[in-house]
Amino acid sequence: MYQMLPQINITILKGEKGDHGERGLQGKYGKAGTAGSRGQTGPKGQKGSVGAPGEQYKRHHAAFSVGRRKSLHSNDYYQTLIFDTEFVNLYSHFNMFTGKFYCYVPGIYYFSLNVHTWNQKETYLHIMRNAAEAAILYAQASDRSIMQSQSLMLDLQEQDEVWVRLFKGERENAIFSDEYDTYITFSGYLVKPSLEP
Amino acid sequence: MYQMLPQINITILKGEKGDHGERGLQGKYGKAGTAGSRGQTGPKGQKGSVGAPGEQYKRHHAAFSVGRRKSLHSNDYYQTLIFDTEFVNLYSHFNMFTGKFYCYVPGIYYFSLNVHTWNQKETYLHIMRNAAEAAILYAQASDRSIMQSQSLMLDLQEQDEVWVRLFKGERENAIFSDEYDTYITFSGYLVKPSLEP
Amino acid sequence: MYQMLPQINITILKGEKGDHGERGLQGKYGKAGTAGSRGQTGPKGQKGSVGAPGEQYKRHHAAFSVGRRKSLHSNDYYQTLIFDTEFVNLYSHFNMFTGKFYCYVPGIYYFSLNVHTWNQKETYLHIMRNAAEAAILYAQASDRSIMQSQSLMLDLQEQDEVWVRLFKGERENAIFSDEYDTYITFSGYLVKPSLEP
Repeated sequence: MYQMLPQINITILKGEKGDHGERGLQGKYGKAGTAGSRGQTGPKGQKGSVGAPGEQYKRHHAAFSVGRRKSLHSNDYYQTLIFDTEFVNLYSHFNMFTGKFYCYVPGIYYFSLNVHTWNQKETYLHIMRNAAEAAILYAQASDRSIMQSQSLMLDLQEQDEVWVRLFKGERENAIFSDEYDTYITFSGYLVKPSLEP
Repeated sequence: MYQMLPQINITILKGEKGDHGERGLQGKYGKAGTAGSRGQTGPKGQKGSVGAPGEQYKRHHAAFSVGRRKSLHSNDYYQTLIFDTEFVNLYSHFNMFTGKFYCYVPGIYYFSLNVHTWNQKETYLHIMRNAAEAAILYAQASDRSIMQSQSLMLDLQEQDEVWVRLFKGERENAIFSDEYDTYITFSGYLVKPSLEP
Repeated sequence: MYQMLPQINITILKGEKGDHGERGLQGKYGKAGTAGSRGQTGPKGQKGSVGAPGEQYKRHHAAFSVGRRKSLHSNDYYQTLIFDTEFVNLYSHFNMFTGKFYCYVPGIYYFSLNVHTWNQKETYLHIMRNAAEAAILYAQASDRSIMQSQSLMLDLQEQDEVWVRLFKGERENAIFSDEYDTYITFSGYLVKPSLEP
């Protein structure tokens, strides 16, 4: 029975071509890009602050100049010469109540004392450093009143006191001044602080 | 005979679907990353070095020291003591023509006056600040000639003048000097400029 | 009638396989690279400026104050007044053996001399600069002993010497002091070094 089948060109009977395959999967993501370039260098830091000033030298000062317009007579005891007039009293180193210069700035000081004598009486004073006489200002008695002076320098320690002392009454003595004029003066000032070389 | 062929549904003869396509190529590299952010600001510079020690300090100065080789007698009026000898006259602050120290640098000054008395005459002078007597230098008359001194400090303002005044002739007075020696001296100098603390 | 159809192997009639699917689309771009690393820290700021110079650097000083506790009488020759007490003798500029202040620091100096007269004798001294009399300290003879003073300023050169000279014996003269008190004092100090303007 098969032989009976005619020779048929089968191809004409062949089915249609199959459908196109599906598209492939999308490719994988690309690799990550290279890292970005390094950022720019940061800005320069602020300039440092200005250095400290060089060794500051602070100059120390001490200066007083006081006067007295009242006379003073000796009594039984030594007396401190007290002043009533301030020409100069820098930082009040001279104590007008005690009549003493108090050393706050150690160093070399110059002192100058001028008084006027009292007729017929001695002039008998000392420039004192604490309890010790540093120099004398002395004039014998006379009927002529005159100026009398003494000056010196002292190398003072802090707390030293410099003052003028009238000798006691066993040697009757006095100094003169009056309300019209300043005859009696006492001055002192720092010439060289100990801290300066 | 062809008519005899059965009606065949050809679709069943369609080919198989094609194979799935290949996966796509991997994507290209991503873009480079963005640049990094800028670095941080650098650290602040070091503090500057301490300044150099000061150069020669510009300290203010004023100083004069003058002398007189001629005697001077009182007349009807007050007289300014004029000097004829300059020991020191820094920046010419002492005016030799007027006999007055002129204050250019305000501050505390020390002044010192020395004279020699004239026999049988009073010695009667004042150290003046402008028109006011600051202190007196006085000696009663005598037949003995001697040195007489006064000193003090003054806190001067600019333009202040300090000078020595001989009292007028109603009190006959005089001071002595001669051509061979300097008996009369007047000195002053700045102890502390106002600008220094 | 269908039964009559021969058993045909249908597969040979099947259509061809479909075409291969197209290649998948290229993958998407990779992600952007990571950001670059942060830039380096900026350079350190400049060092701060040098501080301002200090004020006064070195101040020169010279100062002496000496005393004498022994009397001194004139002899045939001029005599240098020698001292036996040092109140102040900074850097030993005052030579106790020669009795002379030697100038190591050129400049303007202030000098102050105080003596005590001897009864019935003249007081006749000079403050000397090298071989020249700068100023006199003179008192006529008397039976009253008193203080006598002189002061002045001098502008010294290096090596200058300042001292006190007692006049020679043709004018019998003397100064008084004693072991209990210092009557005779001589002081001097630098007011303004030449190097300071």
